[in-house]
Amino acid sequence: MIRACLFDFWITLVEIDQLDIPTRKERFRDFLKVAKDIFDHCYDETATIADRLRERFAKEVTSRDFIQLLLKRLEIGDDPVDDLDRIYREAVLDLDLRLREGAKEVLNYLRSKYRIGLISNTSVGKVVRQLLKRFDIERYFDSIVLSDEIGIRKPEPYIFHYALRRLDTPPEQAVFIGDSPYLDVLGARRCGIYAIYLSRGEEYPPHLPRPDLIIDGLASLLDRL
Amino acid sequence: MIRACLFDFWITLVEIDQLDIPTRKERFRDFLKVAKDIFDHCYDETATIADRLRERFAKEVTSRDFIQLLLKRLEIGDDPVDDLDRIYREAVLDLDLRLREGAKEVLNYLRSKYRIGLISNTSVGKVVRQLLKRFDIERYFDSIVLSDEIGIRKPEPYIFHYALRRLDTPPEQAVFIGDSPYLDVLGARRCGIYAIYLSRGEEYPPHLPRPDLIIDGLASLLDRL
Repeated sequence: MIRACLFDFWITLVEIDQLDIPTRKERFRDFLKVAKDIFDHCYDETATIADRLRERFAKEVTSRDFIQLLLKRLEIGDDPVDDLDRIYREAVLDLDLRLREGAKEVLNYLRSKYRIGLISNTSVGKVVRQLLKRFDIERYFDSIVLSDEIGIRKPEPYIFHYALRRLDTPPEQAVFIGDSPYLDVLGARRCGIYAIYLSRGEEYPPHLPRPDLIIDGLASLLDRL
Repeated sequence: MIRACLFDFWITLVEIDQLDIPTRKERFRDFLKVAKDIFDHCYDETATIADRLRERFAKEVTSRDFIQLLLKRLEIGDDPVDDLDRIYREAVLDLDLRLREGAKEVLNYLRSKYRIGLISNTSVGKVVRQLLKRFDIERYFDSIVLSDEIGIRKPEPYIFHYALRRLDTPPEQAVFIGDSPYLDVLGARRCGIYAIYLSRGEEYPPHLPRPDLIIDGLASLLDRL
């Protein structure tokens, strides 16, 4: 008996064409007016450090954490943190983002039968909340759990259990829909949540546990749930 | 009854001062003779894609994978792959690397009592093998397991089980020593391996399972094992 449906955000509900890193880097550089060579070197090192922190400690590096690391490396004080944080958010919001086909219909349909949750890894959760509003789907969610707000990322079980508690649902009565074999499918399966993999046609990594169900578009959920 | 001791490589056995990314980027750019702006943009995007592949699929991105992604993005054919792979390895080997204090004594002592293994996440395993020779510690290891050679990274249980099979040791008769709470401690604990955390004084992340033992230097292993 299913009681709650949880979704991933990036790629699963919202599609992106570009990579955002260069845009953000150039906007930061323009704002701080640091020489290109010095700035780029420090920015790249900071991005590497942020990845290593995420990897070694499974801890989210928020946009503010990233900005503070960068300013420290550039030997600039903390004064521009708020401005850069705004620029960081704007850089993401200016990307070419689209709601995935069928997302709204599926959410609207599922909401009449189940509790609906969102679990997203993000360095700037505020932006996810703004995008949910922009695409007019925020009202469908009973619970929104963002890694930079609670500090822990998928695939760690904690973030799934936290979301389940907020939906008052045990893992065996929940399904999770996502596009990442590792973060979403493995993360959900580790907690005993039924894992639905939204495939884009790639071969499924043979070393990871298989999802319970594979779909190739959100509309398939209308028949299945 | 302990039968095997397994070690992480980077930071645990070998210390690094610099970050290697800028060096590698500049050497690639010099070799390919692409305009700085175009090259840097493509390189940064490739680094982002590589991180996302590692994250989404828990699959290692090898040095050759990275180089091929980069050349595709630059719209250059595969001809320079071998040269760039050599430059990639040289860039790592030219870093300021040192064997951690006590490493040799500890390995020499443990070898008289236990089987010794190495499990390392690395995009270019050949370099780890060369460094083990440079530091004259290769001969202490009965088994060396590198993520780019088997395709799967820590903290996935597969890589730990693979190493244990090669040492003919069940998990409950093994210890793993590493400096990453997520990759090493969580990875080992998930498999039922006794996890020793080599701390550099940071606070232990409260959301991860605690190690079985915390040490602040390799020499502590002489008293404990």
